[in-house]
Amino acid sequence: MNYAGRRVLVTGGLGFIGSNLAIRLAREGAEVTVIDSSVRGCGANRHNLEPFLAQITVINDDIGALFAHRQAIEGTAAVFNMAGEISHINSMRDPVRDLELNTVSQLRFLLALREICPGVRVVYASTRQVYGVPQYLPINESHPINPIDFNGIHKHAAASYHRLLTAGGEIDASILRLTNSYGPRMALNIPEQGVLGHFFRRALLGEDIEVFGDGKQLRDPVYVDDIVDAFLLAGDRKGLPGMNMNVGGRDALSLAEMAGVLAGEGGCRIRYRPFPDGHKSIDIGSFSTDNSFIREILGWEPKIAFADGARLTLAFFRENRDHYLP
Amino acid sequence: MNYAGRRVLVTGGLGFIGSNLAIRLAREGAEVTVIDSSVRGCGANRHNLEPFLAQITVINDDIGALFAHRQAIEGTAAVFNMAGEISHINSMRDPVRDLELNTVSQLRFLLALREICPGVRVVYASTRQVYGVPQYLPINESHPINPIDFNGIHKHAAASYHRLLTAGGEIDASILRLTNSYGPRMALNIPEQGVLGHFFRRALLGEDIEVFGDGKQLRDPVYVDDIVDAFLLAGDRKGLPGMNMNVGGRDALSLAEMAGVLAGEGGCRIRYRPFPDGHKSIDIGSFSTDNSFIREILGWEPKIAFADGARLTLAFFRENRDHYLP
Repeated sequence: MNYAGRRVLVTGGLGFIGSNLAIRLAREGAEVTVIDSSVRGCGANRHNLEPFLAQITVINDDIGALFAHRQAIEGTAAVFNMAGEISHINSMRDPVRDLELNTVSQLRFLLALREICPGVRVVYASTRQVYGVPQYLPINESHPINPIDFNGIHKHAAASYHRLLTAGGEIDASILRLTNSYGPRMALNIPEQGVLGHFFRRALLGEDIEVFGDGKQLRDPVYVDDIVDAFLLAGDRKGLPGMNMNVGGRDALSLAEMAGVLAGEGGCRIRYRPFPDGHKSIDIGSFSTDNSFIREILGWEPKIAFADGARLTLAFFRENRDHYLP
Repeated sequence: MNYAGRRVLVTGGLGFIGSNLAIRLAREGAEVTVIDSSVRGCGANRHNLEPFLAQITVINDDIGALFAHRQAIEGTAAVFNMAGEISHINSMRDPVRDLELNTVSQLRFLLALREICPGVRVVYASTRQVYGVPQYLPINESHPINPIDFNGIHKHAAASYHRLLTAGGEIDASILRLTNSYGPRMALNIPEQGVLGHFFRRALLGEDIEVFGDGKQLRDPVYVDDIVDAFLLAGDRKGLPGMNMNVGGRDALSLAEMAGVLAGEGGCRIRYRPFPDGHKSIDIGSFSTDNSFIREILGWEPKIAFADGARLTLAFFRENRDHYLP
């Protein structure tokens, strides 16, 4: 990969995946600009970038206001579009907020981007949630789109913008559909962001890990370094065949198994409890990813097993605890 | 059908299809309320309802402001959700406006509706544009969703809201996917609303009818009375299987053939010219509808042939010319 000396933009770069990506890009010698509005509850954390702020320019603004930052953006070679609200449960509680964050801002952003950086390479972070309840496993990119929460509807509309503008030659986008992710800099204090943040938090605190239902639902979590690899590979290419690429983990584990790994590391117990109100209707059951398309196109494969990634993650948070578990 | 004495709500009821529907409902004895904000360019025309205003309550407001009209809406048995901007070309010129009209307002509307009228029957007017360029003809409801303009993306997001809230038992919606429509009260002064308004306008004025390209693209236009029948049948049922139903015309004709029918009626000529800028990229080529699902579920079939519907339409506009061609 060749990012040295190239201008890149990371939206949502104060968040979990965005910050890991921005740091890797800075280490590769790229000229990195981050735009992030630190919307409450979306996971932005200034400490994520703090040790690297000398090498990274941070614009504190909504991505929809991109025109105001034209000069900082001109000449960008690749955009990693990570900004958004990922919480399914928050989208059910306040659908209009989710629409604003995931669709309205994205539309304004892309309309500005196509003018400031015509034809620019864009890699958009989408979600497995657009598939809804799996009709078969593992899920490939041809699976029907059938989201069962507002977040999935809104993220899918934003993905459609990327597709439309790419078909029109105005930008050159790929869409990566991510499944559960974890790793250093993940948000531990936002229970609405999903099950893994809760698991890691409890393991760090040595408190009981709560599992909703019987914990038999499968997930294939991806360690953040693997995700960053996928984005870097995709951002370095042009005009890829197929808009959509799944980015799934190496192994499918049950939630109970993941809780078990973390309980072992954290010296704590697992407590099973019924699904709380509002959670069951947006639970998709088991999920696992067919990664064969991205392997074929980009040569990407997830490398880190959950047990190893979990240890790396816990080690990071033990060292940086004050910034993540205040 | 049994609408006598029932409260019904028609969104976008000052527009073309909405007004025809509101009038039919009033004639059937329903207690009709219309909500319409008369957004410039969307086709609202107060004269559409004028002869029936004694029987129809009109709320002049955005559908997204429904909470402000709670008392007028409570007890509604069926909602015909026709409000929206249908222009594909306008959506490409101003995507944010299209998002506001077709998605943001619809979301606010449905979030209010589910509280004011829990479980209410809703029939939503969607569009064939969500299919994009046909992969096969005639198109059935299983055809992939692949809109090639912002209007299609935004209408599809709104349809997804209906699906989501129906799956959750909060409303009880069906989605009718309409193809080109025509008939009395259509907007003749809004060229952005599509080819048929232009054809009828020129025929009425006795001016040359312009056809873009070679005019060989097929369409299956539906006369508005047939469309109204489909909505009335759908609104009178509960919990229909399958969210989505195509509503297509009786016959597939080329645009040149339709222009020929109207040139004959209007005593004018046809002029062929190249696609203007911006039109070609959102042209879907030929389109025809497989109506077998709605026939099976509702017993609906289009009855009016284009030549007959065209004569009825021209007769209406000749009588009401001043209100439509000022």
